Amino acid sequence: MLNRIPTPILIGILRLAANWPWLAKKINKLVINKSIDVCRHRPHPWSTIHDYVSWESLTEKQWSARHLPAKILNPPKNDIATELFRRKEIRYCSKSTCLFPAFAQYLTDGFIRTEMPGKDEPDDPTRKRNTSNHEIDLSPLYGRTIQQTRSLRLLSSNEGKKGRLKSQLVDNEEFAPFLYDESLNIKPEFTTLDFPLMSEKFKGNSEILSRIFAFGGDRANASPQVAMVNTLFLREHNRVAGIIEEANPQWDDEHVFQVARNIIIVLFIKIVVEEYINHISPSIKFIADPEVAWEAPWNKPNWITTEFSLLYRWHPLIPDELKWGEINYPVAKTIMNNKPLLDIGLKQAFIDMSAQRAGRIGPFNTAESLLDLEAKAINQGRLCQLASYADYREHLSLSRPKDFSDISSDSAVVDLLRRIYHKVDDVEFYVGLFAEDPDTSSPLPPLIRTMVAVDAFSQALTNPLLSKHVFNEDTFTGNGMDIIANTSSLKDILERNIPGELKPTDFVGMTRLN
Amino acid sequence: MLNRIPTPILIGILRLAANWPWLAKKINKLVINKSIDVCRHRPHPWSTIHDYVSWESLTEKQWSARHLPAKILNPPKNDIATELFRRKEIRYCSKSTCLFPAFAQYLTDGFIRTEMPGKDEPDDPTRKRNTSNHEIDLSPLYGRTIQQTRSLRLLSSNEGKKGRLKSQLVDNEEFAPFLYDESLNIKPEFTTLDFPLMSEKFKGNSEILSRIFAFGGDRANASPQVAMVNTLFLREHNRVAGIIEEANPQWDDEHVFQVARNIIIVLFIKIVVEEYINHISPSIKFIADPEVAWEAPWNKPNWITTEFSLLYRWHPLIPDELKWGEINYPVAKTIMNNKPLLDIGLKQAFIDMSAQRAGRIGPFNTAESLLDLEAKAINQGRLCQLASYADYREHLSLSRPKDFSDISSDSAVVDLLRRIYHKVDDVEFYVGLFAEDPDTSSPLPPLIRTMVAVDAFSQALTNPLLSKHVFNEDTFTGNGMDIIANTSSLKDILERNIPGELKPTDFVGMTRLN
Repeated sequence: MLNRIPTPILIGILRLAANWPWLAKKINKLVINKSIDVCRHRPHPWSTIHDYVSWESLTEKQWSARHLPAKILNPPKNDIATELFRRKEIRYCSKSTCLFPAFAQYLTDGFIRTEMPGKDEPDDPTRKRNTSNHEIDLSPLYGRTIQQTRSLRLLSSNEGKKGRLKSQLVDNEEFAPFLYDESLNIKPEFTTLDFPLMSEKFKGNSEILSRIFAFGGDRANASPQVAMVNTLFLREHNRVAGIIEEANPQWDDEHVFQVARNIIIVLFIKIVVEEYINHISPSIKFIADPEVAWEAPWNKPNWITTEFSLLYRWHPLIPDELKWGEINYPVAKTIMNNKPLLDIGLKQAFIDMSAQRAGRIGPFNTAESLLDLEAKAINQGRLCQLASYADYREHLSLSRPKDFSDISSDSAVVDLLRRIYHKVDDVEFYVGLFAEDPDTSSPLPPLIRTMVAVDAFSQALTNPLLSKHVFNEDTFTGNGMDIIANTSSLKDILERNIPGELKPTDFVGMTRLN
Repeated sequence: MLNRIPTPILIGILRLAANWPWLAKKINKLVINKSIDVCRHRPHPWSTIHDYVSWESLTEKQWSARHLPAKILNPPKNDIATELFRRKEIRYCSKSTCLFPAFAQYLTDGFIRTEMPGKDEPDDPTRKRNTSNHEIDLSPLYGRTIQQTRSLRLLSSNEGKKGRLKSQLVDNEEFAPFLYDESLNIKPEFTTLDFPLMSEKFKGNSEILSRIFAFGGDRANASPQVAMVNTLFLREHNRVAGIIEEANPQWDDEHVFQVARNIIIVLFIKIVVEEYINHISPSIKFIADPEVAWEAPWNKPNWITTEFSLLYRWHPLIPDELKWGEINYPVAKTIMNNKPLLDIGLKQAFIDMSAQRAGRIGPFNTAESLLDLEAKAINQGRLCQLASYADYREHLSLSRPKDFSDISSDSAVVDLLRRIYHKVDDVEFYVGLFAEDPDTSSPLPPLIRTMVAVDAFSQALTNPLLSKHVFNEDTFTGNGMDIIANTSSLKDILERNIPGELKPTDFVGMTRLN
C-alpha cells in the first residue's frame, strides 16, 4: 500500500520526520524498498554463460549475471564512442567534488571486476567473466583471497602490533609498503597479490614502479585518488586494531585482526550509504539501517551483473587536469602515479580532491585519453548481447522512450542519435545511459541513478556483517559498535588518521559547498 | 499469530483441507515456516574456521557453518561409541524400507561432503572442512564442477543423442560407463572426476574395480543401493533429454543438456519433499511448492553446518544383511560392490530394497562393521567443539533435559549415560541425538527430526531453480513443467525407465506397507 505513495510526498514526510528517529527509520525502509522494487529481484535467471536458464547461469559466479536476457540488436557501424563521448570543453557537475569519483572508483573496483582480455578480439569471452567476490568486502584493502589477506598482514604476536596490516612510514605518515624491491622485482612476500593492472605499461619505469603500494586490489594503484582512499582505510584498520587489542589483551593476532576487519567493512558500508549514496540521492537522506534487509524479499545472494559493470563507467567525472598541492597534473600523468599523494600527504590529498569540481556525467564530456574506454564499453555491451536502452528503461519501471527527443533535450544529442540509429528502440544500453539529460540535483542521469539504487541497496545491505544475528557486540565489541555509530563520512575517518587536526576551513566532502 | 497454533490442531486442519488445494497450499506454507522458525535463520555467524564472527566465518564455505558457537566440554574417556551404539541383535524400524536409507545416503552425499582426513589425527582440521556446493545440485550425477560435468556428458551434435550423459548397455539395460579400463586404470576421459572414496582399499581387486561406474560423486559407488539411485536419475536424464530434443529440434547439445538438467534437479527436489520428507514426517503431507520460499525471511544462501553433517549419520538404518535377488549379502560385502545391481537389474533392485526393513535409528543398533564410523563421528564433534546435546535441544526450541531420564525411557540407555557423564548437561551432541527414544510415527527421533526439517526445507526450497522468476516454462519448457507436475515418487520415475511395467504386486517405496 505505502509503496504506492508517490516519491515527492514521501520526501515531504521524510523531511518532517527528520527529528523523529522512529519515523525516519520507517520511512528510510520504505523508500529503500521502493527503490529496489522497480525491477525483478535476484536470483537473476541469466548470466553471460548461456542465453537461457541453466544450472550454470544460476550458480557459476565467475560469469556475470544479467538483468535482461540476450537480445540481438543491429548496432551501427559509426564510431559512436568518439562522436557522442568526446569532450571538446569540460562541462562541470554542479554537485560533485573530485572526492566523489575517487570514492566511486575505489568502491566499485572492489566488486565490479570484469576479467580483462589478453587481446581485444571480437569473440573473446573474458569480458563476460569476472573475478569478483560479489560482496562489499574491501578487497582493495584486504585482498580477494585468504592467501592474499595473509600476505598483507603483519601477523605479529607482539604487544602493540596485533591484528595489523603491514605498513611503512614515509615522512612520518603511514602508508602501505611498496610492492617492488630496489631492483623493481615484486617482493617475494607479495607474489600472491594480483598483479597491478597497467603496470606492464610502466615496465622499467622506476619513477612509477618504485612507488606502487602493496595493496589488496589490482586496481587500487590506478591513480593517486584511489590509492588515497585505500591508504585512509589502511590507517583506520591499524588504528582500530590498536583499540581492539588494548581492550582485549588476551586475544591473539588473528582475533584482533578479524574483529578489526569486521568493523572496517561496516564503516565502509556506512560511508557508502550515508555519504556516497546520499550524495547521489536528489533529496532523501538515507541511513545505513541493517534491519531494512533482514526480512526483505530482495535479500538474496549478490551477483554483479554485466549491466552494472557497464553503467558504472563514469569517465566524464574525470577532469582534464588534477591539482595536487601546487602542481597541476594532466590526467594521463596521474595514471599509476603515487608521487603526488606521497608528496603532499593524506590530509592535503583529501582537501585538494574536495576542492576541485568533477566533470558532469553525460554526452560530449569524456577526456581524450579515456575515449578508448568508451569504445571498449560499447563493444562489451555488444559482446554480451545486451537488450536496448529502451528495454532497460522499461525493465526499471521508467517510461519507455518513443522518440529520440524522449532521451535528451539537447538537439546535438538528439540529432546524433537519430542520424546513427534508425529507431529509438535500437539505441544501445551504454549509449542511452550516457545520452540522457543530466540532472542538477544528482550527479547521475535517471536510468543510471535508478539502476545504481537497485544494485547498491540490494547488495550493500545484504552484507552478512549486517545480518540479524551478526550485527551486534559479539561481532564488533562495544568499542567497535561505538566506532560504527560515530562514523558517517570519510572526513570522520580522516580526522582520526592525520597528524594534527583539520582546520575549520579545510573542507573534505563529495558534495560541493555552494 | 497463526504460528502459535499448536501443531496437532494444524494437522487436523490440514487433513480437512486435503481436498481444498488453495487451503492446503496455505497450510503447507504455514507448517513449513513453523518448522523452520524453531531456530535462528542463516546467515550463521560462525563456521569451523574461527570461534568468533569473522569475514571468513561468514564467507569461506569450504569451512562448515555451525548452529552454535564453539564450547569446550569435558568429554568422557569411555568408549561410548561401542557401549551405546553396538548392535547385539537388530531392532527394525516400524516404518521404513531399505529404500529410505538408500535415498537418504544418495541425497546427503550430494551436499554433506566433509573433507576426509589423510590421517585421523587429533588436531587434523580436515574434518572441519567440506567440498560441498551447498546446493541440491545432483552432484553425484552431474559432478561438482563444470569440468566434471563435461567429462560425464556425451557432447554429441548428432540427432537423437543431444544433451545426453554418457552411458552403456549391460544386458540391454542402461548404466553409466565403467570408470576403469581393462588394465584397471581410470579411463583418461574420467580423470577429472573425484577419485571414488574407499577405492584404495580395493586396489588390484578386479571384481570390484571393473564394475565401478563413472559417476559424478565420489560416494555414489559406495554401495549398490546408492549406485541404483544414481542409475535411475541417469536414465531419467537421458530420457528427458530425448523429449526436449524432439520438441526443440533447433537446439544444440548444450541447450538440450542444460534444460534436461534443470528438469531433473527439480524432479529430485520434488521427491525429496514429497516422498522422502513425507516419509519422515509423522503426519503432515508436504507439497513441494516453490512459492513458500519466495518471500520467506529464511531464504538466505545455503551453507551446510557441521551439526548437519553429524546428525545425518544414520548407520543403524543399515541391516546386517541385504538381499539382492536370491542372494543374501552381509553388509560388508556390498561396499563398493556393483555386482548385485548389475546382476538383477534396476527394477528388481528397487523392488528388493523396498521389500526389506530398515533398522531403527537409535542406541544399540549399529552393525559391527560400521562401529568405527560412530567413534569418528563422536571425535568430529569434539574436534569442532560442539555445544552439548542439551544446548542443541534448547536451540531448536525443544525442552532442555533436566535429567538423563528426559532423554530416554530405556533404563539401559539412562544407566549408561548416567555412568559415563557426570551431568545431563555434559551429554555430547552426537550421543544425545542417537540416545533419544525412537518414535513410531517417524524413523527419526525428535531432535534429529527437528534439525532435518529446518535444514532440509530451508535449503531445498531455496534452490535457485525454484525461485520466483526462474520456476517457469522458459526454464523447463512446457514438456518439462508437465514432467515435474507428474512426478512425486521414485516409483513414478522408475516406471518410465525400465523394460516392461511394474506389476501391481511390485511394491516400490520408502514406507512399509502394513
